Amino acid sequence: MTQAHDTQHPGTALQIAQDVRAGRRSAVSVITGVIADMEARDTRFNSVTRIFGPAAVARAEGIDQRIARGEDPGVLAGVPFGVKDLFDIAGEVTTAGSLVLRGNPPATRDATVVARLQAQGAIAVASLNMDEFAYGFSTENAHTGTTRNPHDPACLAGGSSGGSAAAVAAGLMPFTLGSDTNGSIRLPAALCGVWGLKPTFGRLPRDGAYPFAASLDVVGPMADTVEDLRAVFAVMDGRAPDALPDVASLRIARLGGWFARNIDAGFVAAIDEVMRHLNSTTVIELPEAARARAASFLITAAEGGSLHLARLRQRAMQYDPATRSRLMAGAMLPSATLVQAQRFRSWFRTRIHELFSQHDVLVAPATVGPAPRIDQPTIMVEGREVSARANLGLFTQPISLAGVPVLSAPLAHPSGLPLGLQLIGAPGAEAALFAVAAELQRAGLARCTPLTMGSK
Amino acid sequence: MTQAHDTQHPGTALQIAQDVRAGRRSAVSVITGVIADMEARDTRFNSVTRIFGPAAVARAEGIDQRIARGEDPGVLAGVPFGVKDLFDIAGEVTTAGSLVLRGNPPATRDATVVARLQAQGAIAVASLNMDEFAYGFSTENAHTGTTRNPHDPACLAGGSSGGSAAAVAAGLMPFTLGSDTNGSIRLPAALCGVWGLKPTFGRLPRDGAYPFAASLDVVGPMADTVEDLRAVFAVMDGRAPDALPDVASLRIARLGGWFARNIDAGFVAAIDEVMRHLNSTTVIELPEAARARAASFLITAAEGGSLHLARLRQRAMQYDPATRSRLMAGAMLPSATLVQAQRFRSWFRTRIHELFSQHDVLVAPATVGPAPRIDQPTIMVEGREVSARANLGLFTQPISLAGVPVLSAPLAHPSGLPLGLQLIGAPGAEAALFAVAAELQRAGLARCTPLTMGSK
Repeated sequence: MTQAHDTQHPGTALQIAQDVRAGRRSAVSVITGVIADMEARDTRFNSVTRIFGPAAVARAEGIDQRIARGEDPGVLAGVPFGVKDLFDIAGEVTTAGSLVLRGNPPATRDATVVARLQAQGAIAVASLNMDEFAYGFSTENAHTGTTRNPHDPACLAGGSSGGSAAAVAAGLMPFTLGSDTNGSIRLPAALCGVWGLKPTFGRLPRDGAYPFAASLDVVGPMADTVEDLRAVFAVMDGRAPDALPDVASLRIARLGGWFARNIDAGFVAAIDEVMRHLNSTTVIELPEAARARAASFLITAAEGGSLHLARLRQRAMQYDPATRSRLMAGAMLPSATLVQAQRFRSWFRTRIHELFSQHDVLVAPATVGPAPRIDQPTIMVEGREVSARANLGLFTQPISLAGVPVLSAPLAHPSGLPLGLQLIGAPGAEAALFAVAAELQRAGLARCTPLTMGSK
Repeated sequence: MTQAHDTQHPGTALQIAQDVRAGRRSAVSVITGVIADMEARDTRFNSVTRIFGPAAVARAEGIDQRIARGEDPGVLAGVPFGVKDLFDIAGEVTTAGSLVLRGNPPATRDATVVARLQAQGAIAVASLNMDEFAYGFSTENAHTGTTRNPHDPACLAGGSSGGSAAAVAAGLMPFTLGSDTNGSIRLPAALCGVWGLKPTFGRLPRDGAYPFAASLDVVGPMADTVEDLRAVFAVMDGRAPDALPDVASLRIARLGGWFARNIDAGFVAAIDEVMRHLNSTTVIELPEAARARAASFLITAAEGGSLHLARLRQRAMQYDPATRSRLMAGAMLPSATLVQAQRFRSWFRTRIHELFSQHDVLVAPATVGPAPRIDQPTIMVEGREVSARANLGLFTQPISLAGVPVLSAPLAHPSGLPLGLQLIGAPGAEAALFAVAAELQRAGLARCTPLTMGSK
């Protein structure tokens, strides 16, 4: 690359867009700066799998030319972003973190949400690491390696969208895209301390995003601030954002029972403080949360297994061993079990929708605690040490089954690794979640502190 | 019984209700007449499994008392009806045609649709024969025997609601209730020459009806006239019937391809005549009908297998051998196969809904031909002789998968056994089907001729 570039952190998405649109910075300088930063610093985190250098710079040049001609370059002009390696990027092979897809032809067009972002001037600069085929909670990938947590490189970043969370936490780019089937946006967002949104099931178009479990998959953004998250979601959603409701008008409750077990006292105290600030003393129980988690597991296994069965028959040995065995087990699950899980899901969704006639936002932890160590990738659940890769979704999977939107908020934790809160809303009511998130950020109770922004 | 009773055919439901409400006949005389008739004549057909004598007579006495007091006894006052032996009747054990459920406690309340009918003065007089657990198209039941076709007792009545169709065709009662998962109302209605309605999936409450395949099951009526069918459906539906559209305004098309194969020339000519009368020359193809049939088979097997798995593990030998093997196979179906079938269903429903943006009513045969013989319970499909029990649903199963309403119209066939036409509508648009059915009945192209009404 021959262009001059910034050497500082690029700033938030809205700051960059403001600067680029006003001509204070060129898009090319932003993008070349980000590329140089990834090349220099990501060796520590392994969040990036491919840098789209020439294409991104060419796109940045196009934006600078539009600005020079006095044209509107879009609300996200010059903003760099990365995508979990399952979003189609025109001209690139979508691998979904696998060897199996590496021989595929390059995508001929961008995934719809990527196209909407790029139409507003945002620029895809990299693909990001993930568990193979999104089947894991830890971003431990036999082919592309393990992504490290920017807040402590000895720890996991969480998964399956671990690269997407780590890239924001590392300060490499202000926002990224991930996908969430059982918690794959919320968990890495929580463990890396960034904002993440799992939108309502069915709200955002998924075409061009490699599927996993079709009845649960959603795509969504992660970002460094609530404002960025909301602006990016609005562009992905293809319509003006809903007005934020007054937080004081929202009926907010905390989830007890299943969601109050297995978490440590410090985490409980942090959630206590959030609930005090939100003036809520309501604690409710989600019925049959453990069963909901099991149902989500089973439906995921069956749908994932069905999707991969033909390929597993032909070239099973190309799969990541951990993914292979789970997909094979899923494909062989008896349909009688799947039917039971699906029937339970219908029942459970009805109960959840009833809850939202009395509450607007439900608050629950995203994980049992901070990021596990890479050399001991386990968590403690009910006194037993279990695999993080399979079990980190303890608190996210039951919510997945309901298809409701969840915003993962990074709790400001005075010491130690980040922790995340799930803010859970009624279908389509993302605006209520943004309102609560903005208030927590304003009050300093939740915040994202990307590395090069000076926090560490 | 000590009451006097009629010895003649009771008449249509609307005639009986009119007579009873006007005091021209007592409800008790109607009901005791029907009970005596069943006892005398059903030995030939084996359509009835239990007669609810004392309860029905007591209910009739109550109606006569209400009339004597000047109270409104309901729009179906004194009308006798029978139910497929899977509807709960308070005080009776619901067996679903099985030995397995015979030890259950009696139902404590009527199924909702039964309760709605009885609240309007109709009187449940009998339970009616069926394939065990509704898993068959022939009403060949290892425990309760085979139901015979009133138009030729050497032939099958079709199934699984065979008793319900035969009871109407025999002239034992003006209407009955059945259930339809893959064709179980439409097929026996067609083979016995009665009117039958499979309503839109989800429209009528199913509680108190023993389930089979929850994502496909619907309950519905069979009757001797279109007017009775419509009046009974309105009461089951719990609201005033939709106005009938003008038949001339309806866009009517005939299904070709899959639905034009395997049927004989005489049947084709009869459908030609119907289409000429309806002024339609449009022929369209339902996409992937064979695959739709396969998907309906698989989903049924999986959901049925799931429902029965726990009991099959404990007392498989109490099941009808034909049902047992099918349910076991269903329970062992790999979930990957079920997932594929469900994904196909989503695709197929979208296509069907698209068709209904251009057409109001689709016309298709209900079967490949008239009722098979009991001593040779097979049909010819693509040159192969296959089991009627498993294959009669050739033309009904693809439609089941779409969840749309279907009215089975008994073609007036100058000689030989009855044949049935499916009139297929958009979701919720039963009224269009009633309009076409009424026109075919008016023109003499379709009619039900119960035995004791003098046809044979």
